[in-house]
Amino acid sequence: MYEAGDVRVENVPDASVIEPTDALVRVTGAAICGSDLWPYKTLEHTDSGRRMGHEAIGMVDAVGADVATVKPGDLVIMPFAYSDGTCEFCHDGLQTSCEHGGFFGSGGDVDGAQAEAVRVPQADGTLAVVPGGADDALMPSLLTLSDVMGTGQHAALVARVAPGKTVAVVGDGAVGLCGVIAAKRLGAERIILLGRHEQRVALAREFGATDVVRERNEEAVERVREVTGGGAHSVLECVGLDESTLTAIGIARAGGAVGRVGVPQSDTMRASRTAFYANVTIGGGPAPARAYIDELVPDVLEGNIEPGRVFDRTAALDEVPDGYRAMNDREAIKVLVRP
Amino acid sequence: MYEAGDVRVENVPDASVIEPTDALVRVTGAAICGSDLWPYKTLEHTDSGRRMGHEAIGMVDAVGADVATVKPGDLVIMPFAYSDGTCEFCHDGLQTSCEHGGFFGSGGDVDGAQAEAVRVPQADGTLAVVPGGADDALMPSLLTLSDVMGTGQHAALVARVAPGKTVAVVGDGAVGLCGVIAAKRLGAERIILLGRHEQRVALAREFGATDVVRERNEEAVERVREVTGGGAHSVLECVGLDESTLTAIGIARAGGAVGRVGVPQSDTMRASRTAFYANVTIGGGPAPARAYIDELVPDVLEGNIEPGRVFDRTAALDEVPDGYRAMNDREAIKVLVRP
Repeated sequence: MYEAGDVRVENVPDASVIEPTDALVRVTGAAICGSDLWPYKTLEHTDSGRRMGHEAIGMVDAVGADVATVKPGDLVIMPFAYSDGTCEFCHDGLQTSCEHGGFFGSGGDVDGAQAEAVRVPQADGTLAVVPGGADDALMPSLLTLSDVMGTGQHAALVARVAPGKTVAVVGDGAVGLCGVIAAKRLGAERIILLGRHEQRVALAREFGATDVVRERNEEAVERVREVTGGGAHSVLECVGLDESTLTAIGIARAGGAVGRVGVPQSDTMRASRTAFYANVTIGGGPAPARAYIDELVPDVLEGNIEPGRVFDRTAALDEVPDGYRAMNDREAIKVLVRP
Repeated sequence: MYEAGDVRVENVPDASVIEPTDALVRVTGAAICGSDLWPYKTLEHTDSGRRMGHEAIGMVDAVGADVATVKPGDLVIMPFAYSDGTCEFCHDGLQTSCEHGGFFGSGGDVDGAQAEAVRVPQADGTLAVVPGGADDALMPSLLTLSDVMGTGQHAALVARVAPGKTVAVVGDGAVGLCGVIAAKRLGAERIILLGRHEQRVALAREFGATDVVRERNEEAVERVREVTGGGAHSVLECVGLDESTLTAIGIARAGGAVGRVGVPQSDTMRASRTAFYANVTIGGGPAPARAYIDELVPDVLEGNIEPGRVFDRTAALDEVPDGYRAMNDREAIKVLVRP
């Protein structure tokens, strides 16, 4: 990506193992992320361009001398952040704050995943091997564990979803839809989706949403508070705009929790007092997707969850620029890239 | 209080049992709260005046026909909020969101506790009986359970203080000092107080603070992050100003939690992105002091904690106006009122 709206497919030098802790992964599935749309809307011109993409599933082609847990031929899921797997934060399951970590597709000399191959730093900490490989039909769902499904899971856990709870999900994008799956999986009794895009709403219902609120902002707050008798125990904020965050806080029940995973588009948060007087907890951030893969893989392999259904378009590499356009125009929920 | 700076002692009609769920409590100890200083600084003129005070310990003089758990002669602690003890929120230990609750000293026809007697609504849910009564020397510490000690406890619990954790306490007022006690009691390994008032800092050290940071704002953030190698696991925000909240978020470790109990002085919170990228959780609000009394009373009776030491001045009723002045001028940490 050279600037907002300018995505090009170019030949670059082959990815390779550089550090002894690297792995080289041949990408069989990648994706365009909702968060990729922010630079697609706002990136200033850069002469060198930025290699994009941070979600991948693929085959290990080569590993560095110090890599112990993955080997050539392994089918691996590559979460959007790389992490050493050994520091205090990785130990606590917060790999996105790893002391030696970073983010794919974030610029500099870190590779992007919308490519034929990617160099994966800290391969032992970063990559999750899919035991025994998997059928191609499961690839899309496994791929979501690299980001959106793990992100929905993170939102749900931070929002303290538990059996019997009423959950509200703000946002009907791929992450919001995965948030519905996560809430259902964690035993939520009632799942209210705030969204208005018919195709997405229909998918949310299949994933387990019990109610849909199509209103926005103050009207949405009134509506959710009305149907829940005072607000939802758990709110998943899957957008990141000021208004959606305000809505998320407004629909939380006293003593409830908001799990934020939408990247905040400003540095101030409104409704600080509203949250305070209701003892609403606000948490969340970049999801440690790596922490959840091992737990979620069996549910994908057994067909209990199908987060791959959020992909409603597939693109070859040369179709990626149009994939960005389609997602930006809300023609597609999420684009699967098959290099 | 008739307006900012104008506190008067007046004769009012005797408090009495009105509702069958009321109790009449003869106040033996009350207090001036840091939160009383906000109206003391800002209250606009009111012809009727506002009855002040929301912290009390005293003897039950009379009860309504429906009151079952307290009886005349009982020594009781009256938390700053009244609550029915039976609704969903009370059941969950969030009495400050009680469906039939409210706050003492908040205006209207609700009594204030800086008085000889107070009508206590929802007596069964609100009042906590001190089993067997207590020695007068313990009265100040028991009185703190009506607010500041419960509030410090709430901040510590919301901030997830636990054995081995590093804790930072923002604010050296009575609540911050009680936050130090709570953190120590919950097993914190290291307790860093952010404050600069020598007398308060000395008391904090006696309560268990291991480090003192006298810097403020950005310098405080740098200093705490330096001495902790990346921030504190648990941060207790005991002030409520925009700057102190910003500091609290800034000194939290990635994956850590901020427990807010200082009443927010504005409705916007800065550092939303800082909190997000570090997965810092921000929670807290008005403390359900009632929820913590039963747990804390034994520790007071056995002398394990001495939160009553935050009182460094005693006032008779006619000295209350000067007590406000003294606290506002930071001459006194907290004033004990003995009607």
